[in-house]
Amino acid sequence: MLASVTPGAAAAPTSAGSFVAAARPRIILFGDSLTERGFDQPGGWAAYMAANYTRRADVVNRGMSGYNTRWAVQVLPYVFGQPTASAGSGGSGGGAGALAGQVLFATLFFGANDAARKEGPEHSARQHVPVDEYGRNLREMVSYMRATGISRILLLTPPPVWAPGRRKHMLWRVGEASKDWPLDRTQEATQPYARAAAEAAQELGVPCLDLNTLLQQEEDWGERLLCDGLHLTPTGQEKLWSLVREAVWREWPETRPEALKTQFPAWDAIDFADIASSFLPQGEQQGQDGAAKEKAGGKAAAAAAAGVANGAKA
Amino acid sequence: MLASVTPGAAAAPTSAGSFVAAARPRIILFGDSLTERGFDQPGGWAAYMAANYTRRADVVNRGMSGYNTRWAVQVLPYVFGQPTASAGSGGSGGGAGALAGQVLFATLFFGANDAARKEGPEHSARQHVPVDEYGRNLREMVSYMRATGISRILLLTPPPVWAPGRRKHMLWRVGEASKDWPLDRTQEATQPYARAAAEAAQELGVPCLDLNTLLQQEEDWGERLLCDGLHLTPTGQEKLWSLVREAVWREWPETRPEALKTQFPAWDAIDFADIASSFLPQGEQQGQDGAAKEKAGGKAAAAAAAGVANGAKA
Repeated sequence: MLASVTPGAAAAPTSAGSFVAAARPRIILFGDSLTERGFDQPGGWAAYMAANYTRRADVVNRGMSGYNTRWAVQVLPYVFGQPTASAGSGGSGGGAGALAGQVLFATLFFGANDAARKEGPEHSARQHVPVDEYGRNLREMVSYMRATGISRILLLTPPPVWAPGRRKHMLWRVGEASKDWPLDRTQEATQPYARAAAEAAQELGVPCLDLNTLLQQEEDWGERLLCDGLHLTPTGQEKLWSLVREAVWREWPETRPEALKTQFPAWDAIDFADIASSFLPQGEQQGQDGAAKEKAGGKAAAAAAAGVANGAKA
Repeated sequence: MLASVTPGAAAAPTSAGSFVAAARPRIILFGDSLTERGFDQPGGWAAYMAANYTRRADVVNRGMSGYNTRWAVQVLPYVFGQPTASAGSGGSGGGAGALAGQVLFATLFFGANDAARKEGPEHSARQHVPVDEYGRNLREMVSYMRATGISRILLLTPPPVWAPGRRKHMLWRVGEASKDWPLDRTQEATQPYARAAAEAAQELGVPCLDLNTLLQQEEDWGERLLCDGLHLTPTGQEKLWSLVREAVWREWPETRPEALKTQFPAWDAIDFADIASSFLPQGEQQGQDGAAKEKAGGKAAAAAAAGVANGAKA
C-alpha cells in the first residue's frame, strides 16, 4: 500500500510512524521564561543548542513564562509522559515509557519566579513560593522525570538578580509612580533558592549548574548579561549556552554531538549503486546486530535501528 | 501509581504519554542544507520561526545537507510516518495516521543539489538529478506528505546561485588550482529547477514560495544574502524567514501564532484557588464540549483536549 503512494520510497519498518517521534533523540528544556525565551533572536541559548545538535537531536522547548514550581508540577505528565512503571496500564500509542531512552538529557530550570518577593508588588506576591516548598517541588520533578526514564538531568539555579536593572525595568514599565515601590525580585531573596536548588541536586545526585554564583563571577554581569535585571541579553544567552554546554559535555561526554550518530547517512556516504540499502535500519543493512535487535524487541528496537541508519559505512 | 510519584501533579488522562508528542503541534521543515542550517546563529530562519511560535508549536528541523530529492524520498517514512490509509496495518504506538492533525504546516525545500551541474566537479555530478526526475520526486513527496495527513505544505524553489560568490568559495576551499574549474552550481542550471518546482506546485495545488525569483529582486542579493553564492548569510536567513512568514500567514491565517492557543495557561490565568483545575483538558474543565470529545474519540480527542488546556479562562 505504501508503494502505491511512493514508488521510490524505502519500505519502512512496520512501526515506522513512531520514528517520527522516536528516531531522533530529544533534549527537553523545562523551565520558566528564562527557558521559554531560549529561541529568542539573535542568539538564544536553545537556538545555539539546536544548531550544535543538528541532525543528531531535537531541542524541545518547554519553558513557561512566569511559572513557579508549584504550577510546573501540574504539567509534568504533559511534558514528560507517564512514568515507566505504569507502562502496562496505558492505552494505545506512546503512553507509559514512551520516553525511555529517547531523551538525551533534560534541563530543569526554575526558581526565578518562586523567589519573587511576597512583599513585592501584587504579581510577585502571587508568584512567590516558600523556599521549602520550592525544594520539595524540585525533588518531585526530578523523581517524576526519572520515573519516565530520563537518566540525565541538569538542574540550574535561578540567575542572580541585578537590582538597578530591575528598578530601571519597573520605571520603564510602570512609570515614575513606581520609584518608591518595593522591587519584585532581589538577589537577597533569590540566593536562598539557589542554595536550596544546589542542595536538592546534591541530595538527588544530579549535576547542578549554579548559575546564580557563576554569572556573578562575570565582569559587569548585571549590565552586560541581564536585560531587565533578570532575563538574559544576547550576550547572557550565549554565556548561558556555553555554561550549559560545558556542564553537559563534562558530565555526560557521550552526549556531545560528535559522539552521536547523525540521523540518515551523510549524502556522500550513500551507496549510489544501491540507494535504498543505505536507508535500511542498520541491522538489516549489515546483518551483524540482528541478535541485539531481536533481544531488544518491538518499538524500541525499531527506533534504535532507525537511529543508526546513518553514515556508518562512510 | 502516578500519585505516589508526584502527589501534586495533575492526574493525567490515560494516554497522557502521547501528549508529549501530540499536544503541541509541529512544524516540519523538510529540505537540504538550506534547511539544516536553519538554526544557525545568529538568526537562522528556523530559529526565528521557533521564537515566533513559542508555547504554540514545535519547529522540527529535518534538513539534510547535500541531499537531492532522489535521496530525500528514501527518508519520507522516517520523517512523516506511515500514510493514514494503512493505519490498520501498523503495529503499536504512533504508526499510521499518528501525524494527522498534529502538523501545523510543513515546508518542502529541495532543488539546490538536484540542480548541481553534471558537467561540474565530481561532487556536483554525483548530486545532480535530471529536472524531470526532480519534478516527479516533488510530486511524490507532496503526495506522501498529504497521505500522512499533512494538509498545509509550502513548496520553496531553490535559491538563485551567485556565480562570483561560488567561484570565491571554490578558490577558498580548493585553492588556486581550481580557478579554471567549472562551477558546481550556476543560476542558468538552477533556474529550470525553480520553474519545475513552481509548475509542480501549481499542478498539485500547493502554495509556492519562488525564492529563486524573489531573492533576485533584492538589492545586492548575491553579496548580501548569500555567503558562498548559495547558502544564506544572517541577513539572508532573516529575509527567508520574512518571506516564509508572509507566505504561510497569508495562505493559512489560522496558523499565525496569535490565532493559536498557547499550550498550558498563562501564569496569571491560573485559578490560584483551584490550581489543578486549570490544567485539566478543556472538556473536563468546562464540561461543555464533552460531546465533541466523545465524537472525535481516542487519541486524537485526548491530544486535542490537551492542546486546549490553556488560558481560555482568562
